[in-house]
Amino acid sequence: MSRVIDPPLTARVNRGLEEHGLDAIVASSFENVIYFTGTVIRTQQLIPDRLALAVWPVEQPLTLIVCTIEEAQARAESWVDQIVGYTEFADSPVKVLAHLLSRVVSSRARVGVEMRHLTASYYTELLSLCPNLTFVPADDILARFRMVKTPREVGILRDIALLTDQVVRKAFEGARIGTTERDVAIQMDVELKRSGADVVEFNHVATGQNAKLAHPAPGDTPFRAGQVVRTDFGGRFGGYLSDIARTAVVRSASPRQRSVYEKLFEVQTHVIESARPGLRVSDLFETCKTAFGRVGLDFAMPHIGHGLGLGLHEHPIIHPFVKEALASGMVIAIEPVFRGEDGIYHVEDLIEITDDGARILSRSADWSTLLEIGDR
Amino acid sequence: MSRVIDPPLTARVNRGLEEHGLDAIVASSFENVIYFTGTVIRTQQLIPDRLALAVWPVEQPLTLIVCTIEEAQARAESWVDQIVGYTEFADSPVKVLAHLLSRVVSSRARVGVEMRHLTASYYTELLSLCPNLTFVPADDILARFRMVKTPREVGILRDIALLTDQVVRKAFEGARIGTTERDVAIQMDVELKRSGADVVEFNHVATGQNAKLAHPAPGDTPFRAGQVVRTDFGGRFGGYLSDIARTAVVRSASPRQRSVYEKLFEVQTHVIESARPGLRVSDLFETCKTAFGRVGLDFAMPHIGHGLGLGLHEHPIIHPFVKEALASGMVIAIEPVFRGEDGIYHVEDLIEITDDGARILSRSADWSTLLEIGDR
Repeated sequence: MSRVIDPPLTARVNRGLEEHGLDAIVASSFENVIYFTGTVIRTQQLIPDRLALAVWPVEQPLTLIVCTIEEAQARAESWVDQIVGYTEFADSPVKVLAHLLSRVVSSRARVGVEMRHLTASYYTELLSLCPNLTFVPADDILARFRMVKTPREVGILRDIALLTDQVVRKAFEGARIGTTERDVAIQMDVELKRSGADVVEFNHVATGQNAKLAHPAPGDTPFRAGQVVRTDFGGRFGGYLSDIARTAVVRSASPRQRSVYEKLFEVQTHVIESARPGLRVSDLFETCKTAFGRVGLDFAMPHIGHGLGLGLHEHPIIHPFVKEALASGMVIAIEPVFRGEDGIYHVEDLIEITDDGARILSRSADWSTLLEIGDR
Repeated sequence: MSRVIDPPLTARVNRGLEEHGLDAIVASSFENVIYFTGTVIRTQQLIPDRLALAVWPVEQPLTLIVCTIEEAQARAESWVDQIVGYTEFADSPVKVLAHLLSRVVSSRARVGVEMRHLTASYYTELLSLCPNLTFVPADDILARFRMVKTPREVGILRDIALLTDQVVRKAFEGARIGTTERDVAIQMDVELKRSGADVVEFNHVATGQNAKLAHPAPGDTPFRAGQVVRTDFGGRFGGYLSDIARTAVVRSASPRQRSVYEKLFEVQTHVIESARPGLRVSDLFETCKTAFGRVGLDFAMPHIGHGLGLGLHEHPIIHPFVKEALASGMVIAIEPVFRGEDGIYHVEDLIEITDDGARILSRSADWSTLLEIGDR
């Protein structure tokens, strides 16, 4: 998988800044720094104090501020020419930002920042260093830049979704009674990395008591006949994420288990078939909720899916309070969940919204009937 | 590896709150929520908007606020009795927090919060919902609770450090000319998970051009004779982290490579031998810097090590601006780095500060001379 990411569309960003009356925008989150600069600085996730900042003043070139430890990597990976290093602990990244802003925007400028990423501590420091600037929450503006994918991005997201689905299918098909959660999780890790994943971001393989939890660590619980096995699994490939959930039962499944699974699959199919440009996100959520009722499954989900790209839960998140409409080019994970007494049933597929409706990107195999794990 | 974490010392927390004149403390970061509650909610890392909050009012029981998606897991894993669920998107976690605070502290109370974790957006919301409360930065107070480890924690950190070092040693010893970064990284992932890691948090295996970067993703670059191979690698075991860095050269190493490595190792040994209770952290940093000069290696490090535990870079971080003294029970990664023309040379070991000086926790093998990779 290429590590090169689409250069962000300069025209789109400049138009966005002008629309919102901003003189500059500062990206600080892991995802938005990747989007603006093309470099994947893993320590942004692991050492959040170590800020990386991509500063985009309207109609001017972008500057990337990174700590000196990551500077060589940023220079090697990024398409950004202006890279400024700061020495951790000796320099504050926010001071470097304030100094840069004093040079690239006017003293009374309006600057967009990620209020849902910057910490209260860094934000307070920024306000005190730039008393005349007006800082505006720009989280949603940045989320909207990334919300509609380019054809190249759709291609990457489809490729890695298919790879991830294949990995799950193969692991489930290879498992037997007595195989443990950990065995399967390790096999999935290996195969996903062999497929080109840089990082396995999450790998939940759950059966028995764990199958009732949303995000447990895989343990040494063996698969036993009749038990639900669920996985929620994804990796990062050159910046972009995959995210697949599948449910199976260790041979043999009961008629009730088959029925629950098929109902859940039917709900997912209905939601996917309903998704089209112009439909309100909240209406897609209601469609799902209604479908649960129609098939007779309890519904208890705060959201039923989410945009996927450089971030895991991107715009649009499919929940009842988003009034925005779906649009062509959005790439969304649709993931109905039913909490059964024997475990969580969960199917998650990636779709692209196109002018002709939704297109499923993530099915490497037929998942319409409940997969049984183990010898026939 | 047990998933049960030491219950935090109630007396320590209550004394800390009283010392700082706080009526309550609110933990929100992944590490501090694990420390206060014993549950490892992986989505805190991946979906940071989905807050988990551990609220500890002085001399009262702790309450854990989590979104309903994670509630079953929190109830299964945590020793906390009072767990409050909020419905994502419908309820704001900060509203639930504000409501709880209104019941457990007086209307003019002082409440410690993690200003270096809570986002500007959530913090602003909290201020507006609780106009009469005084919020105080409590990051350092929380960091100090975790800074000195219990004997049980030291035991866990030693066990997982040794396992991690064994995994690296085995992978390096098994590698050959032509083995790729990815091959080695995959083997290390598998072995670490077989050893009990729940998650591989970072796995940098680098040679060639990548060896000059701090945190690159392993790629398909094959090992070639004479090239530096560096890894920086760690996993999470039931909440706690390992973090090991090792450097080798693909057979055969040049005399200069051997010499650089041995000098770096000598520096690390000197730093470890100098570490003892009562020594200022900044003095340990200066000791390292001076030792670089004495052996004739360029020094360009913002820090030379860090505490390790539930967090990756915990107190004390060994940098020039920390005037605090080392104390018995601290567990610290000591990691001198030299940026050579052929790649980064990096050795990182975990030590425990004891009354008798520093004890190395992480050596499963003799790393005092440069390991050569590949056939003799």
